[in-house]
Amino acid sequence: MDLNLKCNIKKFTSPLYLESGRILEPYQLQYETYGKLNSDKSNVIVVTHALSGNHHAAGRYENDKKSGWWDSLIGSGKSIDTDRYFVICVNTIGSCFGSTGPMSSNLPSAEPFRFNFPVITISDMVKAQKILFDNIGIHSVRAIIGGSMGGMQALKFAILYPKFAQNIIVLASTHKTKDWVIAFNKIVSEAIIKDKDFKNGNYDQNVIKKNGLTGLAIGRMAGHISYLSQSSMNDKFQNQYSEDNGLYDLFGKHQVEKYLEYNGYNFSKKFDPLSYLYISKAINIFDISRGYDSLKDALDNIKSNLTLISFSNDMLFFPEEMIEIYDNMSNKNLVEYIDIKSKYGHDAFLVETQKFEKYIEDILK
Amino acid sequence: MDLNLKCNIKKFTSPLYLESGRILEPYQLQYETYGKLNSDKSNVIVVTHALSGNHHAAGRYENDKKSGWWDSLIGSGKSIDTDRYFVICVNTIGSCFGSTGPMSSNLPSAEPFRFNFPVITISDMVKAQKILFDNIGIHSVRAIIGGSMGGMQALKFAILYPKFAQNIIVLASTHKTKDWVIAFNKIVSEAIIKDKDFKNGNYDQNVIKKNGLTGLAIGRMAGHISYLSQSSMNDKFQNQYSEDNGLYDLFGKHQVEKYLEYNGYNFSKKFDPLSYLYISKAINIFDISRGYDSLKDALDNIKSNLTLISFSNDMLFFPEEMIEIYDNMSNKNLVEYIDIKSKYGHDAFLVETQKFEKYIEDILK
Repeated sequence: MDLNLKCNIKKFTSPLYLESGRILEPYQLQYETYGKLNSDKSNVIVVTHALSGNHHAAGRYENDKKSGWWDSLIGSGKSIDTDRYFVICVNTIGSCFGSTGPMSSNLPSAEPFRFNFPVITISDMVKAQKILFDNIGIHSVRAIIGGSMGGMQALKFAILYPKFAQNIIVLASTHKTKDWVIAFNKIVSEAIIKDKDFKNGNYDQNVIKKNGLTGLAIGRMAGHISYLSQSSMNDKFQNQYSEDNGLYDLFGKHQVEKYLEYNGYNFSKKFDPLSYLYISKAINIFDISRGYDSLKDALDNIKSNLTLISFSNDMLFFPEEMIEIYDNMSNKNLVEYIDIKSKYGHDAFLVETQKFEKYIEDILK
Repeated sequence: MDLNLKCNIKKFTSPLYLESGRILEPYQLQYETYGKLNSDKSNVIVVTHALSGNHHAAGRYENDKKSGWWDSLIGSGKSIDTDRYFVICVNTIGSCFGSTGPMSSNLPSAEPFRFNFPVITISDMVKAQKILFDNIGIHSVRAIIGGSMGGMQALKFAILYPKFAQNIIVLASTHKTKDWVIAFNKIVSEAIIKDKDFKNGNYDQNVIKKNGLTGLAIGRMAGHISYLSQSSMNDKFQNQYSEDNGLYDLFGKHQVEKYLEYNGYNFSKKFDPLSYLYISKAINIFDISRGYDSLKDALDNIKSNLTLISFSNDMLFFPEEMIEIYDNMSNKNLVEYIDIKSKYGHDAFLVETQKFEKYIEDILK
């Protein structure tokens, strides 16, 4: 059957009350759906995206080189089977792919928020999505599935709206962002803010879209290191030196350097630097225990079945962080922890879906 | 007894023939010595420094806040006992602490080399030191000891000059720089080169010394991540948020971010950006097998006792890289491999000397 990819924008005129106490009003959310909603609305699966992701999780648009980021998992006859399920993926608030973010404006004629945009949290991203689901008449879902920052959202959904999802699947994520990850994010934020073309947030969007922002490109290179593992990187590049210059040329490069340049500069043309700052801030201050006495206390709210999937070589969110969630779940009947052996590091949740798709199929059965 | 710290500069007028085929002429080397050379010159220990280190390995200068980088190991009554040994540490060629580097010039009146400086290799650093030792009448040494890039030099010494050192001690290092490390170095080189104040290498040295170069500071932050491990970083900072701004302020910071800023910007005022580019290039193209048929073939030259010390949580040079050296040594009587359990990551070779000093004492006995 057809994937039935649809892209929608929903505008809201009532205020979104943020965790910070500030208000976003009006705002909009862009999202994609795949498959068809059944008559009793019992076949909904929510997929939540990561920092550099967006609502385009599956399918391929004409003229696009790449399919959505979880296309290997979502589709007709695939593990998240769009012949059976109605799948929704919402671009998070604060992002730059259609949902309201720092380069949006209050009114069509107004200037973009830029640094006047309020700090948003994972909780705000989740609340905004829940309002959207209510608005389109979806009051419960079969599952919420997400990796990395998507996993943070899935976990937050489980705590904020205990009866909303039957199943929560968290991959390659954590309950609280640790200093290690904050340090990697710091490279990016510092490189963005100090870039002369960032102009203290007053950059020309058209210039950035054309040339990219060097600071974001450099920061993204650091990101790429954290998404891989040493073994996957060494295996991938095999120490190959580019033929362009000699070994004794200061500007000669290893292939891994060209890879980082290509991906870093490409990314910097596609992703808005202010959105990057705001979303990585949301990640940096993510702590599922905030507002609760303890992690255990926070997790006690969960009524869904919770599946935690970590990857053995994840150098960003380490498997022990998922084990901390497992250990702090009072009701062990609700929780399952799966450690996937992978050499791909953090990226395994995107590139090695065949290693965990059978678990997702079993949960959705 | 007194450390007997002496700082010297040796100028050479005969050419230094580099691995690249280029020549450096004239050149000079700055070095420190500790202890006293005995009459038969049989008590010499060479210490080789890492990327961001220099010849100041021990003791403290008046008005300096910090002692030399291996002061915990080198001194009167310490493991490298200056009451018994005459210790030498030479600033590597290409560096910015007195030895000839890219900001040096051919003649006192000439312009600095800048990008006209030739690419140097670990082999060149070692050859230059050997010429210095010959020049000051030292024709054999008890030991050569170094960590990280210092370990590369120690290993290269063992292969280039098989009869020179009785013992070679290599810590937290490798036989060949892998893509993982080249990727971390890429963040720094890209951030330096793209910094507007770098001016394509034509920066004003006085401005850099006063303000630092932002690109080097940002790159150094990435370096700091690679020198620590996730557990040491998380334990050190405990997710603490700075009191300066609120949690919901985009510019509010975690303590780990302030730590990276402080250390990154401080470093960028002290280290010359061109030297950083040249030395990290030397690391990137380090491969002890170059010019030999295989790693085994290269290592077959070694006649010294070789001790390899790795650290369990080293995220820069992984213990398996040292095991590769051990495995490829034909004469197992010459080699010992020691794996130190440490949570400090790569920095352990600098900060946890008490974990391996007894091995060094045993070797020097």
